[in-house]
Amino acid sequence: MKIVVVGGGAAGIGAAGAAQGASPDAEIVVYTEFEDVAYSPCGIPFVHGKDIESFDNLFLATKEQYVQSGIDVRYETTVESIDTDAKTIQVTGEGTVAYDRLIIATGWLYADPGVPGGDLGGLYRVKDIRRAMEWDKILDTTKKAVIVESGFIAMEMTTALRHRNIDVTLVDPGPWPMSDVADPEIVEPVRQSWEELNVDMQWGNKVTAFRGSSSLTHVETEQGDVEADLAIIGTHKVPNNPLAEEAGIKLGSTGGIIVDSHMQTSAPDVFAAGDCTEIPHGVSNVPLQGLSGSHAYAQGKTAGVNAGGGERQYRPVYVPWGMLAGEWMLGGVSFGETTASALGLDFVTGTANGITRARYYPGVKPITVKLLADPESRRLIGAQMVGGEGIKERADFLSMMTRTGITVDEIATMENVYSPAIGALNEPIAVAAQNLVSKL
Amino acid sequence: MKIVVVGGGAAGIGAAGAAQGASPDAEIVVYTEFEDVAYSPCGIPFVHGKDIESFDNLFLATKEQYVQSGIDVRYETTVESIDTDAKTIQVTGEGTVAYDRLIIATGWLYADPGVPGGDLGGLYRVKDIRRAMEWDKILDTTKKAVIVESGFIAMEMTTALRHRNIDVTLVDPGPWPMSDVADPEIVEPVRQSWEELNVDMQWGNKVTAFRGSSSLTHVETEQGDVEADLAIIGTHKVPNNPLAEEAGIKLGSTGGIIVDSHMQTSAPDVFAAGDCTEIPHGVSNVPLQGLSGSHAYAQGKTAGVNAGGGERQYRPVYVPWGMLAGEWMLGGVSFGETTASALGLDFVTGTANGITRARYYPGVKPITVKLLADPESRRLIGAQMVGGEGIKERADFLSMMTRTGITVDEIATMENVYSPAIGALNEPIAVAAQNLVSKL
Repeated sequence: MKIVVVGGGAAGIGAAGAAQGASPDAEIVVYTEFEDVAYSPCGIPFVHGKDIESFDNLFLATKEQYVQSGIDVRYETTVESIDTDAKTIQVTGEGTVAYDRLIIATGWLYADPGVPGGDLGGLYRVKDIRRAMEWDKILDTTKKAVIVESGFIAMEMTTALRHRNIDVTLVDPGPWPMSDVADPEIVEPVRQSWEELNVDMQWGNKVTAFRGSSSLTHVETEQGDVEADLAIIGTHKVPNNPLAEEAGIKLGSTGGIIVDSHMQTSAPDVFAAGDCTEIPHGVSNVPLQGLSGSHAYAQGKTAGVNAGGGERQYRPVYVPWGMLAGEWMLGGVSFGETTASALGLDFVTGTANGITRARYYPGVKPITVKLLADPESRRLIGAQMVGGEGIKERADFLSMMTRTGITVDEIATMENVYSPAIGALNEPIAVAAQNLVSKL
Repeated sequence: MKIVVVGGGAAGIGAAGAAQGASPDAEIVVYTEFEDVAYSPCGIPFVHGKDIESFDNLFLATKEQYVQSGIDVRYETTVESIDTDAKTIQVTGEGTVAYDRLIIATGWLYADPGVPGGDLGGLYRVKDIRRAMEWDKILDTTKKAVIVESGFIAMEMTTALRHRNIDVTLVDPGPWPMSDVADPEIVEPVRQSWEELNVDMQWGNKVTAFRGSSSLTHVETEQGDVEADLAIIGTHKVPNNPLAEEAGIKLGSTGGIIVDSHMQTSAPDVFAAGDCTEIPHGVSNVPLQGLSGSHAYAQGKTAGVNAGGGERQYRPVYVPWGMLAGEWMLGGVSFGETTASALGLDFVTGTANGITRARYYPGVKPITVKLLADPESRRLIGAQMVGGEGIKERADFLSMMTRTGITVDEIATMENVYSPAIGALNEPIAVAAQNLVSKL
């Protein structure tokens, strides 16, 4: 059996490994346009910000390790087309290649800002490690940068560029940072910490053009011009699906490939995984696109197991998320008030301000937890948090609570560890749930 | 209505506050033998170890704040007896005091080591803050200490004394640290970090006598004498119940007061909360005694609400626990292999070694997660962890998983936050569950 994977990101590499596990005798070939696989693109902003010493740190495995593991990775190779009837692909330089099972993991691109000057020099789309190495040298002489929209990576780049003493103007059409996923009072500490870092934040403003002769000199916005020799394009992710679309594989409303619970597409023996797919949200059933590397990897493993003849299902997602933003950690699960309202969901909120260790213990950090629950079923529909530590672990917890439909009444009576050095007497999740219950 | 609380620890203070909330017009009186209420006794080892600057930091509220809140705290006052028929108590210096509702929160004592010399000078039972202030001065000139048994506070004192450069010999009848709650491979890093701190660990050894003329000079053990001018008595907690017992209130097999789900005792209008009670374990139904301050506080609040005429239930416990031990954080939920085997429970284990942030991100720490599940129901019966961060939050999570009966299959497919600065691609809880499922 020959299993072909198109794409060498988290989904593609996860798929290749899992396919090999499920079908050890299969021939497994991974095609990637890039020079590398198996590095952590999510680390790039932190190398730019000098929190991490070198881009070399981001590589997970060497090319030799893949050769030894028996996975055949073809670097800098373009797959031009897929013929799902003939079960072949066209590869530049290789010609027609047959497959028994195909896994599409072509990932995502930044949404086109859709304004003039999008092809000027000086526009940086943070994504590929080789380009990042080149851009990092440019950052040494960069004076002024504009961040276009406050997506996840753009948020991290905002802090990173300030750490490199580059003037930063953040232009975002939303009314506050990450307004599509986070509520204003939750991101307020982040906004404040950027204010302290002297980030020029322009909320409710839109970029209308990038200007310059060959390279960027200024960014035009609805509210005036901003001088800049660099622009970080931080628009939302869109699925990278020309290949699937031309092959007649069914795409959904987000532009992502529609997959079933086995990550199987509309074409026989063709699977898909990662940011090129769309996945139903567990609460709303609305298809989602552009999740995390952890989601991509898990989807890739599911696709790989099934392509290799095993059986694994992927579940609707509840999307725990988290990040370092300014001097804070920010995170949550599913919906904040903004999204829940937009979806027409009925909800009641409960918030608690707490601490992460005993009040007197060194390193104690504040933490705010906000829960949203459906008043009818009393189940969580979302959570948001900001604090100094323990955000990721709590987001994972609350994601599982949301998925399994544990009520806020149950959460309100949760037990918690109390030990001065590692946890406070009152767990803020429990207190937020108690406050929510008292409103029901 | 008059509500009387006996005891000013976490349970008593939680009860007084909750009773006031439920019944704002009630007269609420708290009797305590000690000079203070509302401080954090759990912080004492860390002040001794100089991690926290001063004992003053451990106080949560001033005496004036209690006066202002309308709770009448009577310090250094002994309650001599309870008459549950007459609904009165005898108080030294006050005589007969009537109550409408009584809440017993008399807490715990260290188990008597049961060997000669238990009343010698130089034997320190870490518990009360005023005594701790006095002992802290003695520690300045202490040369050699023996820690008698490795309970929670004794574990913290072991590290604290080494931080003060006092020679430490740890004598424990168990085969490894905290052998009654933790499995050997989980506590092995802790044992190693004490080895690096030059703690003389004597596992499988027992103290047979404390010797000295007026103050301690050496400790006799089954394996020989140990010179010491200080001994930390770290034996397990026993409920402090002479008062309840003499009043004819029903005690259970642990010596703890038997309470129903409303924290009501066998006597009408008498409630109890905290370490003087026993609470059924959610998995085994075995009564437990000697839980955490967080448990005591929550039980106190339950007792207080009900005593005040409200309605709140306390649930069987799953006991998430955690602590700083040596250079590690240690934690878990319910049973390890040792206890599960002793209880005759059938179980399968799954372990994962993971990391807490991206491998390349500064401050990344190792973490090991071990899960135990019932092979029949596929539900968790316990978990154990050792690592550098995120132990408390994971213990809380796994406690809720255990309580709500979420299967390991569900846990194996949990979503997790991935963002280099705050979480790794693979959540070790999920990987441990996957490893466990693969054995079922």
